[in-house]
Amino acid sequence: MVAARANVSRVAVSRAFNAHASLKPEKRELILRIAQELNYTPDRAARALVSGRSHLIGVIVPDVCSHWESQEIDALTTALQAEGFATLLFKTRTDYSMDEQLLSYMRGFNPDSVIAFVENVKPQTLAKFLDRAVPIYVHYPLPGMADEPEHRPLQDRLNVLQYDGIDQAVALLQGYGARRIAYLSGLEKSRASTARERTLRQVMANRGMEPPIVARGDFSYDMAYQATLDLFRIGDGADAVFAANDVGAFGVIDALRHELKLRVPEDVKVVGFDDIAQSHWKSYNLTTVKFDLEERVRALVRLILLRLNNPDAPGFQETLNTRLVVRGTVG
Amino acid sequence: MVAARANVSRVAVSRAFNAHASLKPEKRELILRIAQELNYTPDRAARALVSGRSHLIGVIVPDVCSHWESQEIDALTTALQAEGFATLLFKTRTDYSMDEQLLSYMRGFNPDSVIAFVENVKPQTLAKFLDRAVPIYVHYPLPGMADEPEHRPLQDRLNVLQYDGIDQAVALLQGYGARRIAYLSGLEKSRASTARERTLRQVMANRGMEPPIVARGDFSYDMAYQATLDLFRIGDGADAVFAANDVGAFGVIDALRHELKLRVPEDVKVVGFDDIAQSHWKSYNLTTVKFDLEERVRALVRLILLRLNNPDAPGFQETLNTRLVVRGTVG
Repeated sequence: MVAARANVSRVAVSRAFNAHASLKPEKRELILRIAQELNYTPDRAARALVSGRSHLIGVIVPDVCSHWESQEIDALTTALQAEGFATLLFKTRTDYSMDEQLLSYMRGFNPDSVIAFVENVKPQTLAKFLDRAVPIYVHYPLPGMADEPEHRPLQDRLNVLQYDGIDQAVALLQGYGARRIAYLSGLEKSRASTARERTLRQVMANRGMEPPIVARGDFSYDMAYQATLDLFRIGDGADAVFAANDVGAFGVIDALRHELKLRVPEDVKVVGFDDIAQSHWKSYNLTTVKFDLEERVRALVRLILLRLNNPDAPGFQETLNTRLVVRGTVG
Repeated sequence: MVAARANVSRVAVSRAFNAHASLKPEKRELILRIAQELNYTPDRAARALVSGRSHLIGVIVPDVCSHWESQEIDALTTALQAEGFATLLFKTRTDYSMDEQLLSYMRGFNPDSVIAFVENVKPQTLAKFLDRAVPIYVHYPLPGMADEPEHRPLQDRLNVLQYDGIDQAVALLQGYGARRIAYLSGLEKSRASTARERTLRQVMANRGMEPPIVARGDFSYDMAYQATLDLFRIGDGADAVFAANDVGAFGVIDALRHELKLRVPEDVKVVGFDDIAQSHWKSYNLTTVKFDLEERVRALVRLILLRLNNPDAPGFQETLNTRLVVRGTVG
């Protein structure tokens, strides 16, 4: 009926409802308007059985409300909708141990693609639950190090190069006279945090500095706050603190200013990682290593579409770099 | 095969995969372990056609990374997974004008339930795109006022009573000598903000106070920061600012302290609304009206399950109250 009323082919109608199928905008508009008038929508459940596509993109996250992830999910959902997909959220346990029952649920929804972090679910675990979707992993390669084995199976990858941004941060700290630098880690299991720590060690070694003092955090504000008190009250403190994420850096700044009565940046310099939207808030005005959100999301969407059009191709990769955003917490 | 291997009925197997069907935990565990070994999962696309249930819960939000919403989506996703559902995100345009194409996409996914805010999409608009799901609206009733007409069609509702929490906040401000209170609004179209403003007017009138000075915000930190500069530089300032949300209150506090060089709470008192996780951060330590997240999510899940078990029942309602959380920005 829609095809007849719009005077187009049935194919054109199905293309109109598939935003990543090419179709003249005015033609798509006409078809969708008529479909709307006729109150017609293709049933995706039925179409999924035929096409084998669910138009669902699974996103496995440990914590939707972590600032970094919520900003990524927000931008990703917007970008995916524009392509005719919907974001299906799956939460891992906070202890990062994947729940097999959860994964079988996910499989039941038959996602077209799944975005995951190696620290939340390992490729060999996830693979068992994916019939056709190829997972996209966000990966933090280390200069001059081979991939961990679990990176080898067929998967697509977003590589984030952290060296440049961290090197710029350390150079700035050095330039303002910081010698003793502490690293406030994220969750112990987190590969993002481990990779940041190893990269920081490399950078400092290459600059002829002593290795960083390591304080254990878990990416949260509260843990960062406590770890900072320990570092300065039990430990010998530091000239600068490099936090594994911005929210941790906020905890460091607040502990220094409000409890230890130290000035930032005069007494202690602080650098974060991510450049989340809150980092420009005047109470923090944080100098941080940026991992560009827009670039990241565009790269993920490119990987999703590339894979859908080439289901059997070997793993695709996109690579992003990091850079320092200078604000008020160093000099 | 699973039923045979587990020596249970086929019904038991399907119940095992439906987390809100009752089944002995050990029995469910056994069945899921065997299904796992046999690499079996019921295909939801196929089951959806039979059962008419997609196990997808649509959540329509304007902004996933707003602190309040990301914390709600996070808690809701956890609770829904426990019941065997998955959260399907749909983003409205930032201008809050719903995209008909987006709504027809959403319809295509055939969600079992949809959670929406009246300010993002009106029931009569949404209804056209829902074949069976009954939307759940978060509603802010005003004491002694009839519902807006668009609240009348069949829908379920989470009512949030704001009077008590706002009255406690104003009482505390009065107790610390505040006379001239400003209200920093949220987005102009937002019913949450409008209801907060009207309730604040009622509360202040009932306490014999002059009506609030209104400053226009949009729920964002940056706009709140600018509006506060205008209020104190162009306008006559205020003894206290009541912000429509916590993030706005953070912008108010930073503008007062970092740009206007006024002390909080000594010179100006600040109250927020929501009690998001960031409100206890030492830089803000915000006194705010709490709308309990856990209670909210439990109520939403109850409404979803109640509706699934009673598809044709008239609108269900849950009602939550608000209360003041006292921290450091008033006295």
